[in-house]
Parts: sequence; structure tokens; C-alpha cells
Amino acid sequence: MAEKTLSTISWQDFQTLSLPDKGPYFQAPPHHTLIAQQFSREDIEALCELATRVKRINKRREGANYLKTLLSDKRAMLYFAQPSSRTYLSHNAACQILGLDTMDVRDSKTSSEVKGESPEDTVRTFSSYVDMIIMRHPVGGFAERVAWMMAQTPRPIPILNAGSGADQHPTQALLDVYTLLRSFEKIGGIDGKSVVFVGDLARGRTVRSLAWLLSLFNGVKLYFVAPEQLQIGQDILELLDAAGTHYELTQDFESTMPEADAIYMTRIQDEWDSEGATTTDSSDFHIGAEHMDILKPTCAILHPLPRRQEVSTDIDNDSRAMYWRQMRNGMWIRAALILRTFHREEEVHRYYDAYTPPG
Amino acid sequence: MAEKTLSTISWQDFQTLSLPDKGPYFQAPPHHTLIAQQFSREDIEALCELATRVKRINKRREGANYLKTLLSDKRAMLYFAQPSSRTYLSHNAACQILGLDTMDVRDSKTSSEVKGESPEDTVRTFSSYVDMIIMRHPVGGFAERVAWMMAQTPRPIPILNAGSGADQHPTQALLDVYTLLRSFEKIGGIDGKSVVFVGDLARGRTVRSLAWLLSLFNGVKLYFVAPEQLQIGQDILELLDAAGTHYELTQDFESTMPEADAIYMTRIQDEWDSEGATTTDSSDFHIGAEHMDILKPTCAILHPLPRRQEVSTDIDNDSRAMYWRQMRNGMWIRAALILRTFHREEEVHRYYDAYTPPG
Amino acid sequence: MAEKTLSTISWQDFQTLSLPDKGPYFQAPPHHTLIAQQFSREDIEALCELATRVKRINKRREGANYLKTLLSDKRAMLYFAQPSSRTYLSHNAACQILGLDTMDVRDSKTSSEVKGESPEDTVRTFSSYVDMIIMRHPVGGFAERVAWMMAQTPRPIPILNAGSGADQHPTQALLDVYTLLRSFEKIGGIDGKSVVFVGDLARGRTVRSLAWLLSLFNGVKLYFVAPEQLQIGQDILELLDAAGTHYELTQDFESTMPEADAIYMTRIQDEWDSEGATTTDSSDFHIGAEHMDILKPTCAILHPLPRRQEVSTDIDNDSRAMYWRQMRNGMWIRAALILRTFHREEEVHRYYDAYTPPG
Repeated sequence: MAEKTLSTISWQDFQTLSLPDKGPYFQAPPHHTLIAQQFSREDIEALCELATRVKRINKRREGANYLKTLLSDKRAMLYFAQPSSRTYLSHNAACQILGLDTMDVRDSKTSSEVKGESPEDTVRTFSSYVDMIIMRHPVGGFAERVAWMMAQTPRPIPILNAGSGADQHPTQALLDVYTLLRSFEKIGGIDGKSVVFVGDLARGRTVRSLAWLLSLFNGVKLYFVAPEQLQIGQDILELLDAAGTHYELTQDFESTMPEADAIYMTRIQDEWDSEGATTTDSSDFHIGAEHMDILKPTCAILHPLPRRQEVSTDIDNDSRAMYWRQMRNGMWIRAALILRTFHREEEVHRYYDAYTPPG
Repeated sequence: MAEKTLSTISWQDFQTLSLPDKGPYFQAPPHHTLIAQQFSREDIEALCELATRVKRINKRREGANYLKTLLSDKRAMLYFAQPSSRTYLSHNAACQILGLDTMDVRDSKTSSEVKGESPEDTVRTFSSYVDMIIMRHPVGGFAERVAWMMAQTPRPIPILNAGSGADQHPTQALLDVYTLLRSFEKIGGIDGKSVVFVGDLARGRTVRSLAWLLSLFNGVKLYFVAPEQLQIGQDILELLDAAGTHYELTQDFESTMPEADAIYMTRIQDEWDSEGATTTDSSDFHIGAEHMDILKPTCAILHPLPRRQEVSTDIDNDSRAMYWRQMRNGMWIRAALILRTFHREEEVHRYYDAYTPPG
Repeated sequence: MAEKTLSTISWQDFQTLSLPDKGPYFQAPPHHTLIAQQFSREDIEALCELATRVKRINKRREGANYLKTLLSDKRAMLYFAQPSSRTYLSHNAACQILGLDTMDVRDSKTSSEVKGESPEDTVRTFSSYVDMIIMRHPVGGFAERVAWMMAQTPRPIPILNAGSGADQHPTQALLDVYTLLRSFEKIGGIDGKSVVFVGDLARGRTVRSLAWLLSLFNGVKLYFVAPEQLQIGQDILELLDAAGTHYELTQDFESTMPEADAIYMTRIQDEWDSEGATTTDSSDFHIGAEHMDILKPTCAILHPLPRRQEVSTDIDNDSRAMYWRQMRNGMWIRAALILRTFHREEEVHRYYDAYTPPG
């Protein structure tokens, strides 16, 4: 079978492909990270193992200094046309761990755009100075468009999608799955587990991407707990049906708690709301100290943060509250992903095997 | 006596302590820098010696490259919710000298705050990605609050207060004392010297902190020269009384000039003035070429900068004008402070003793 | 002959000098880069050779890591009082290639200026923390003023002018000449070539500076193609007359195309236009696929970018379209220039001769 490559497919043809069908186009160099659907279970498990090794090597001073030699010959652009201090800082820290120099463009209104430059020229300009672009953009599909455009140039560089439009945020999905893998490390992994998603599931791109990634595991059961108007989209349910993944939709959060191996809380995203709609009674979609007795002792509580009142600060010190560790996991999985982009993961494995740092 | 630690005292109890009583709580790891009152004379002298050694080692190319290995395994957040290019750049340079990677949050309105996140969650998020937070914040006591909050988490990291509210700016006080120590190096040190403070002493936090630090030395005499409504606060005078430090309040700047071993000029800070008050004739609180003959030949003239008309540019090239050196001293003392935060000062001393760089 | 030095000439006397007469004042340390007229043909050729060697060494991982040791003991300030993401990123990348740590001031309204500080004090403050200032400023001649001011202080550091006012942008001129040198490498170099300048030649400082640099080569012929009100300034024509360089002014772009060894397109710069004047039919000053057959097969097409419609995207993949390479060349020539500022070019030559990296 011929290799699928962005340099020979037209933009029109590419856009007609389904998300799973797009994946193979990002396998050949330059290794883009664009959509959650491009990752297989094997990819995910290898990335998570790599992230854990980076994290462990980093614990020792000589290990941290070693990691900084891995990408010290490269430079990355952090192009955040949409502000997000959390995602920005996490990627920036991941780059610093690997010694990868970064430059920032954090404003949507660059001087060039003011001067009438096309978005394509702007990104090609950025690409001239670096070896990789990590980008966040308000326009859905723009990261894919850039990757396709790069393929038409003599110097294509990898694009890492750090959030584009309302649909894709693949690194967030990877860090979520990494947190679940680590949480379930001693209880048999993700296969067969029940995961409860709570809150605004209609508009949260992290839930949509994570649900897909979980469908790659065996015997997983998903619960979607949301007010009717904020329930998960039909398109995701169809992907789950196709994958044979069991799921249930409900508005009764408490009834799912005793079953839950993990609970994934989300914020009601008022900022996406143009009609001023959210009149929901959000107290039904809240977790706090009063629920701790109902939960399994191993239940992992996740939240992509920032939170408002949906997760009480009272449970921050409960051993099941994983959201702060989850955020730090984002830094490690992104370091693993960037390392993989430049094919330097084998160096880490050799170092790890030779020095066996502490757990 | 039991060690005093932030993790076991309540926030309410902590707030009732006097500034000198708070100091011991910042001695145990993680070594926070929060208030001028936490430093003893011995601390100050050790920091100043360390700063001078860093400065000397940095003069040679191999020395500068050596310094960059000292904290190359660490990362710091520069969180400046209140803009200050000078303090920001000075800390950033100090980090770069030590090879400490930095990330910035320089805007008060981060996207997370827009999304309704609490200030505590915001700072805890920042702490997830780094090993130290250097912060400047408009709210008085916020740096202390963050240090206390950190102590309640499993991953507390050191906080360095780069200015908080109207009261504390400990690194400025340390750089001022460092400049005095260096200025008086060949004339017997700070003990027994007369220091004249001039300008807006009511609202300048640098004067308040420096006056306290000088009270740790023997036989110092302080003059406070200011218009009545901008004179130094009664609380500082009480601290000086308790320490047995002599002082005098006056509006006659010229009469103090012949006595002065150092003159500390300050700017009338209109930006703090909400009532539109400053109708003072500031020409009485000004120094220029016309005063050079009255001053001692060794008198050190300091100013925290930026200046307006209170220090004439005519005297910039006078050997007694120390304010430009003072600013550069800020970089060295901050490097020493950051190094001490991570307990790596001994490495510098070993290197210094082995290589004895030029003075 | 006495060395010409900024520390002994008054600012008034210095300002009366012609551009070519100013050049010698920037030869002595600290080696400023301020105006295109300070460079001789020998300087330019040496810089271009250095840029090419840096570029080649950077291709190998060990070479890139070697380059990062060259200025790892230095720090630079990127002071961009006038926004320009392209020039900023290019200089920042050049610094990173050489391991030179950078700090940014990218806003015109720093907090100090708000506090009433003079521009001279602001820049002297910046200079305290670094070993070099790379600056872009809206006020013409301000970079020269800063260099002169530095000469009056005990710690003068080199200033690199990254664009000042409407007149000087020397690094852009150097990257343009570097692109021409590389384009003409196999066809005898720049001597004897015809270069066509097109567009808004009245206000574009890049054209003015490049025309001067080309006058240093032998037998060059320049065509200036512009609507009458946007034609090149009389002052430049006088410099060309003095240098004995042939030129022609015309509005007929197509008639010059068959002669052109290089075409330098520029954008109609509406943002400089205060009277709302540009009523020109810009379609006469445009190049696209329809012209490719008229051009010489070796004709180099340049543009400082960003472009609007004056260069069609249809010709981006034509081998004669040099503008994307031109932009990347900017990074290499700036790296060479910064290296030269610190007199470390010989180290590169020694490394290059020892390792002979691939072309």
C-alpha cells in the first residue's frame, strides 16, 4: 500500500476524510500531532511509558541535566493565537525539560497581520526560524491546514496542535489517558474500567477526545452525566458504537458514583455561550466531601482545570483527587510527545536502562 | 524548641504575628524570601559575600559558563501580576546567570482568572510546572499567603517576594544594604555610619525595609528628610526604638549633607496618590552638582530608580553616584539569594577558592 | 590618524556628519551596528562567509550544540519599542543559535516611562543587566543616540540597530545583500549585475540601505520602478552618483524584467501614509506566474515580506522565488553579526576548518 502523505493529497480531498482516516497522514515525517484519532493504543502506551521515564530521570540533578541535552540543537515556536496560560506553560515547561529553545507569539494581532499578511504566510514565516511549531488557534482545523501547507514547501516542520477551535485538543486527551493509566497501574490498567464524565459534555473538546481514546481499550464502560442541553454529541456516540464501547447517558450523578473507577469533572463553559443560556442547576453536577464515602477507595477524580465550584476544595487533600497530579502529568506527556516528534525516544530508553533512576 | 513551620500553623494565627516573629517560619525548607525582617545580620553578610563571588566568577568566560551549570536542572516562574520592568529584568538576569530556566506570567488578567479560577488555584497551577516562584503582586501579604498555602500541599516550592502591596520588597532592601556594604568596604563597613533618607518616606516600601535592615548594624544613625505629610511611618520608628537605633526627622536636607556617609534619595511617588495631594516644593528634596562640595568625599549616593528630577543627571559621573552600580548590584544579590534558596552556595565557594578569579 | 571614538565627540558634532563619515566611529569596541554605511565591501563579504559557515555547522547535531557554546556566557536585551514579530523572531533565533540568553522588552509603554523616567535612563537601565542591546525604535537616530550615550558611561555595551525610524535598518540590508551573494554564487557574484527595485521606494528604508550597499560593488546597474510619488529619494541618487553607480528610474516594470538579474519587490506601505494618499494602480507593480517566461532563468526574486498582492503566491514554488530563503538568511546573517560583535568569529572558522561540515 502506498504511504499516505500530505504532500500529494489535495486540501479538498483531505478535508472529506473521517478523523480515523486522517491519522495515517501524520505518521510519516514530519511527525505532526493534530488529532486524538491519530493515536493507536500502542502509541499511547509507548508515550506514557516514555513520559514516566522522563519524569523519573528528571528527579536526579544529573538526570535533569541529561534531559536538557536531548533537544538542545532544536528550536520551537509557541504560537498561541488564543490565550491559555495553562496549556502554554505546560508546553513551555516540557520544552525546557528537553533543552529545546522556544520563542513565543502569544498575541492574535501580530504586526504582520495588521500589515495585511495572509495567515498562511504568517505561519510559514514562523516556521522559517524554528524546527517545530506548537500552536493554539481559535479556528477549527487550522492546525491541520498548516500541516498540509507545510507539506507543499521545501522545509516542512512538525506541527503540534495545542488546541484548535472547538473540536481538537489532542495533548489534553493524552494527559488524561496518562493520568488514568497511572491511577490504575496497580489495579489492572484501563481495560474493564468504568469512567464517568460530568458537566458540560456538549462543548468540552477534552471529553470528546478522551472518550475516543478510551474506546481503544477493552471492556471500558462510559457514563455521560449532564443536563440535557449539555449532553455529549451524537457524533461521539456513533464513534463509540462503531468501536463497540458501552456507554450510558444520565442526569443522576450520584447513582453512578459507586460504580466509578474514575470521575472526569468539567466546568460549565460559560465563555462559549453566546445566547446567555446556562440556566442549569449546576449543584447536581458537583463533587465534594459529602460524596467521599460513596466512592470506591481507588476512584480517581480528574478535572482539566480551571475549576469553579464543581469540585470542592475540601477534597483537594483526598488521595483520590488526581487533578493536581493530572496537570503535572501534562508536562511529562508533552515532553514525551515532543521527544517522539524528533525521534529521540530511544536515547531516553538507553539512558534509563543504564542508570535505573529511583521510582 | 519545636521548629516553626507553616504547615502546622493556621493562617489566622500566622497573621497575628509581628514581622520579626514571622521570620523563623521561613527558615525551614522550602526557603521562602518574603519579608526583610526574616534576615539576620549574619544572613545578610553571607549573602553579600556570595553575591560578590558570583560577580567575580562571572567576569571570566569559563566562570560565567560554570555559573550556568549551578541551577540548570531547575525552572522558575516569574509571576508579575504588577508590572515592573526593572525588578522583572533584574530577577530574570539573575536566573540566567545561574542557568535557571524561566517562564513568565506578566499580565494580571490571565485567561484562567477570566474563567473564574481562584487566585490560590492559579498560583498552585503555576507551581506545578516549576521549582520556584518569583512573584510581584499588588495585594499586600499575598506572597505570604501563597507560601502558607504551599505548605498545605504535597509539593511546596519556595516563593520569592519581588514586591507585594505597599509594604514589603525584601530583595530591594538586600540590594541596598549590599551597595552600602560595598561602598563602605574600605572605610570600616556599615557600623557607625550615618545614612540620610530623602523624599517620599511615607509610602516608599524600600526605605521602610532598608531602615529595618540597618538597625541590625551597630551605632548606625539614620536621618529622615521629608515634607511633613510624607515623613516616615510611626511603626518603623517604633521598630528602630526597640532596636536602639538612633534617628532624626527633619525637613532641612542641606544641614544633613556634611554628616552623611550615604544619602538614599527617593522619588515622590505620585502613582500611589489617590487624593491628588503632592503639592510639595520638591526642590528642597533634590541633589545636584551644587551640593558636591558639601558632601564627604566618600559619601555614597543611592536611589532605587527610576528617578525624575530629584537626582540631577549632572552628577552621574561623580564617583560618589552609586545608583547605577546599585541597580547592577541588584542582579548579583538576587543571584545569591536564588542560589541560597536551592542550597547550592557551597558549590560556589568551592569553585571560588579553587580558581581565585580576579577582583 | 587618531582613532575616531564616540566618547570624545559631542552629540552635536556627531550629528552633523554624513552617514559614510559616521561609520568609523562604530569600528572601535564596543562594536555597534547602527547604519548600513558603516560596512565596507570586505566587511560584508566576511560576514556573509561567516553566516554560511554558521548555517552549515548548524546542520549537524554536534555542530548546533557547538554553536550554542559560543556566546553562552553573554546576555542580550531585545528592546522592541516598535512591534515587529518578524525582525524580533529573526534576532531571537540568531541569539538562540549562539547560546546567547535574551530578555525582552516589547512594549513601548514600560512601567518606568509611566513613572516619568527619561528614555536615556530607561536604556541605561536595560544595559545594566546585559552585554548587548538589540533595539528597534520608532524615533529616527535613537539607536545612534543610545550608542553615543553609552560611550559616556563606564560600562558601554554594543548596540545593534534592528530598525530605527524611517531611515535605517542595517541588518535587513545585510540579509538582502547576503541573499544576492548566495543567489549569484555560481554566476560570478554581484559585480556587473542588474537589480530592479519595485514598489514604494520613497518610504521603504530597506531599499535605501540596500541600494547603498550595492554601490560598493563594481559595475552594478540599478532600476527603480515606482509610481512617481513613491519614487526613490534624491539623497540616495546623490550617494549613487558619488559612488559612480549607474541607475535608471521608470514606471514600466515589464520593460526591465528581461534585463533583471534580481528583482526586489516591496509592499506599498499604507501604514506610513498619513494623508490617505495611495491611489496608485498597484497592478503595474506586481509579479506573478504570467511573468515567469520573460525573466532570466537565474533571476532572483526578493521581497522583505510581509507581502500583500504584489507577489503572487503562484510563484512560491518557482526556483527563482528567493523570498522565503531570504527570510531564513536573515537569521544566519544576524547570527554572524552578533558573533562579530563579540569577536568570536575566529572560533567558528577554526571549528569549521577542523570539521568541514557538509554543504
